[in-house]
Amino acid sequence: MSQFPCNLSIALLHYPVYNKHREVVTTALTNLDLHDIARASRTFGLDRFYIVTPSVDQRILAEKIAGHWQDGWGATYNTDRKEALSIIKVCDTLKTAKAEFQSFFSKEVKTVITGAAKHPGSIGFNELRHSLTDPEQPFMLLLGTGWGLTGECFTAAGHILEPIQGTGSYNHLSVRSAAAIMLDRLKGTR
Amino acid sequence: MSQFPCNLSIALLHYPVYNKHREVVTTALTNLDLHDIARASRTFGLDRFYIVTPSVDQRILAEKIAGHWQDGWGATYNTDRKEALSIIKVCDTLKTAKAEFQSFFSKEVKTVITGAAKHPGSIGFNELRHSLTDPEQPFMLLLGTGWGLTGECFTAAGHILEPIQGTGSYNHLSVRSAAAIMLDRLKGTR
Repeated sequence: MSQFPCNLSIALLHYPVYNKHREVVTTALTNLDLHDIARASRTFGLDRFYIVTPSVDQRILAEKIAGHWQDGWGATYNTDRKEALSIIKVCDTLKTAKAEFQSFFSKEVKTVITGAAKHPGSIGFNELRHSLTDPEQPFMLLLGTGWGLTGECFTAAGHILEPIQGTGSYNHLSVRSAAAIMLDRLKGTR
Repeated sequence: MSQFPCNLSIALLHYPVYNKHREVVTTALTNLDLHDIARASRTFGLDRFYIVTPSVDQRILAEKIAGHWQDGWGATYNTDRKEALSIIKVCDTLKTAKAEFQSFFSKEVKTVITGAAKHPGSIGFNELRHSLTDPEQPFMLLLGTGWGLTGECFTAAGHILEPIQGTGSYNHLSVRSAAAIMLDRLKGTR
């Protein structure tokens, strides 16, 4: 890891998100979200992946999962996993996550919210990829769980990223798959 | 689903793959491999995703997972998941999977093997993307589990796909993340 963090980070939000009935809920952690997104983040040069949940129990669980591969049996069993999961930071709110990321930069952190629906005035992948070439401008990609981030989150975010377009009307990627594709589009070598 | 399948399919192989100690093993199914890769495949227009394992018990389990979302409680709970998992075909060997896919095409199915390591003479993503524009030429993407497909598989495959390049030396994507990125590179709308 370099002295200064990569100017792109990811925050995976477990609140406030919709459930299937469009009620605002806190979702439970999914173990493989942590693994897959940490591994993809590390592959594409990120060194901050924030797990955000207001639940104390769920934060303890997230620390336990990440810690297992840092200090536990997993640390010697799989050193690649250790490196990936070392970039996880567990936070109570998005505000806390932003403040942690902000501490490394003088320019204000811009949040970029993601989702499967189209929004007017959204930023394109190529535009964001270009913006990321300024290493002093930090961006935080906001990913939702459950049935997606609430409308309020979209209003509050700095930018809305265009959705990943499939080849037809079906467009239901897991957050793990969406994160991988976004990272490849924003940072991948072609 | 259209009358003729998409000319790209995926086969997820649980044998013959390496374990951590480079022994050839059969890996156990991972539930989220089925979900994530089926959802990404459906998003990018594929309508065949083969789960290949020589284990009878594991094939029964794969059918049970896919079936839960077809006929069980899951079919009405989440119809998007039903559509994605409907493309799963469970097979005992790659040969069986190839024969099923072959039955829809007169041109011979070309296998394209994938992995994290570089190989001389590998085919690039852009080249394969271009080849896929001929709808009569079928391609089957071979994905490994565990620590990757054996050397024998690489020798037998029609083509070797170039690895996904990250931004540094770390390159340890999950098979779910790798599949999502490959599908986006091969079929995604930009």
